[in-house]
Amino acid sequence: MAGKLFYDRVFKSFSRQGLMTTIGARLGKVDRGTCEILLPYSDKVTQQQGGFHGGAIGAIADIAGGYASLTVAPEGMEVTTVEYKINFVAAFHGGNLRAVGKVVKEGKLLHVTTAEVFHVSASGEEKLCAVMQQTLVPVNKTYV
Amino acid sequence: MAGKLFYDRVFKSFSRQGLMTTIGARLGKVDRGTCEILLPYSDKVTQQQGGFHGGAIGAIADIAGGYASLTVAPEGMEVTTVEYKINFVAAFHGGNLRAVGKVVKEGKLLHVTTAEVFHVSASGEEKLCAVMQQTLVPVNKTYV
Amino acid sequence: MAGKLFYDRVFKSFSRQGLMTTIGARLGKVDRGTCEILLPYSDKVTQQQGGFHGGAIGAIADIAGGYASLTVAPEGMEVTTVEYKINFVAAFHGGNLRAVGKVVKEGKLLHVTTAEVFHVSASGEEKLCAVMQQTLVPVNKTYV
Amino acid sequence: MAGKLFYDRVFKSFSRQGLMTTIGARLGKVDRGTCEILLPYSDKVTQQQGGFHGGAIGAIADIAGGYASLTVAPEGMEVTTVEYKINFVAAFHGGNLRAVGKVVKEGKLLHVTTAEVFHVSASGEEKLCAVMQQTLVPVNKTYV
Repeated sequence: MAGKLFYDRVFKSFSRQGLMTTIGARLGKVDRGTCEILLPYSDKVTQQQGGFHGGAIGAIADIAGGYASLTVAPEGMEVTTVEYKINFVAAFHGGNLRAVGKVVKEGKLLHVTTAEVFHVSASGEEKLCAVMQQTLVPVNKTYV
Repeated sequence: MAGKLFYDRVFKSFSRQGLMTTIGARLGKVDRGTCEILLPYSDKVTQQQGGFHGGAIGAIADIAGGYASLTVAPEGMEVTTVEYKINFVAAFHGGNLRAVGKVVKEGKLLHVTTAEVFHVSASGEEKLCAVMQQTLVPVNKTYV
Repeated sequence: MAGKLFYDRVFKSFSRQGLMTTIGARLGKVDRGTCEILLPYSDKVTQQQGGFHGGAIGAIADIAGGYASLTVAPEGMEVTTVEYKINFVAAFHGGNLRAVGKVVKEGKLLHVTTAEVFHVSASGEEKLCAVMQQTLVPVNKTYV
Repeated sequence: MAGKLFYDRVFKSFSRQGLMTTIGARLGKVDRGTCEILLPYSDKVTQQQGGFHGGAIGAIADIAGGYASLTVAPEGMEVTTVEYKINFVAAFHGGNLRAVGKVVKEGKLLHVTTAEVFHVSASGEEKLCAVMQQTLVPVNKTYV
């Protein structure tokens, strides 16, 4: 399956997620075992000190890992997050976040992924914002 | 400090969080060492199968634990999430989510909290949706 | 199934664990959905500053949660730890550790547990040492 | 500081850990921001099915990440594990385990590390056994 097919499979699911539209997240690069999610800064995703909210950072890390997992799931299946753990390593205002998920273990029953979330400043400088480790389980898809 | 004062302290910070307004979350009961966050179902917080999005569940769990932690932080300080880990135990459509955070350890340097997220159906039935364990650190407040 | 039967089921598995013998851990109370593990202080379980080693604390928390999970697994099955997350909240020398595992969610595919590890001093005073959150999966038993 | 000095600093602390002697773990390669721990299979580290015990895997992952963190801590300080989260991705009998810890974020207040644990068979084949993500805090050293 070429990169375009991985992207299309993920995009079909991603575009159904109300929360991703609500916060303004976009799907980035997708390939077998990896997925990128982009989130521009706006007042829709802030915490009390004006920086990106941990809830928004956690959401795009979860999704980046989850869609990385989807690219290796059997056709006709979805995946569901069993659990994840995320460390926030620095706070950022403005610019964009870029979450990159990666499959670490592709088991029959369970997938394990990691994700890194980077902050990209207006000038293009990248700094580490958060790291995540996640467990997922393939489940039946309930929509067409 | 009476319950009202704990609520007011948390509300002042909560009402500054763009993300909580964006997703429609509300502050519930607050007391020393505990905090409740409520999230009604809407198409702003869904995942691809139409249920509550894990990112929204994670965000209110993080915030419930974080504001429980804030109630025991020294006056004039905020708290920041170092990391959390969340297990999703069941998926739900409709109704409301209710996250209840609780301080487990109140150290000088670090706080440890747990949160439970319940789904409350239209008829008032509560079921466990997610459980979280979290580490926070008191930091200086940068707004008035 | 009475408490004695739960204890016997767990003891049969516990007594096969070389590591538990190596570090001197003992099985405590067992009932449906809960299990207690005891670990006396000795120079076999220390870290560099002379306190209980995090590795020993983690091992008994993992086992307490795991055997709580086993008590609710179908007959003829074992359980395997998918992952766990543990917070260490205080360091202790001497005395005993007491880990108490509890099933939080008993799903068909996965179990979620939590464990608390307490330090019990010579005079019987208990203090919180660590808290854990864990995911397990029922698997086939490969011994009789 | 040359690699030898990093090794010596870690070895001084490692050799004081009763638990590491108890289970038969050895210190491997150490350099700035990274540390390797080796664990040969023996009946001292088994679980009920005869494989490496998760408690032993967790202990060497914790220590590999912890000593990676120590190599970047200020002179005269130790580090303490705040928390870690570990996923077990495959079970193994015989051979050796090799845990490799790596510093991901070196903050003033906190360090974040990850560790991978590999199984090395008698013929030298390596397979992933577990992945860990960890938070540590620098603390005062209480021994000379």
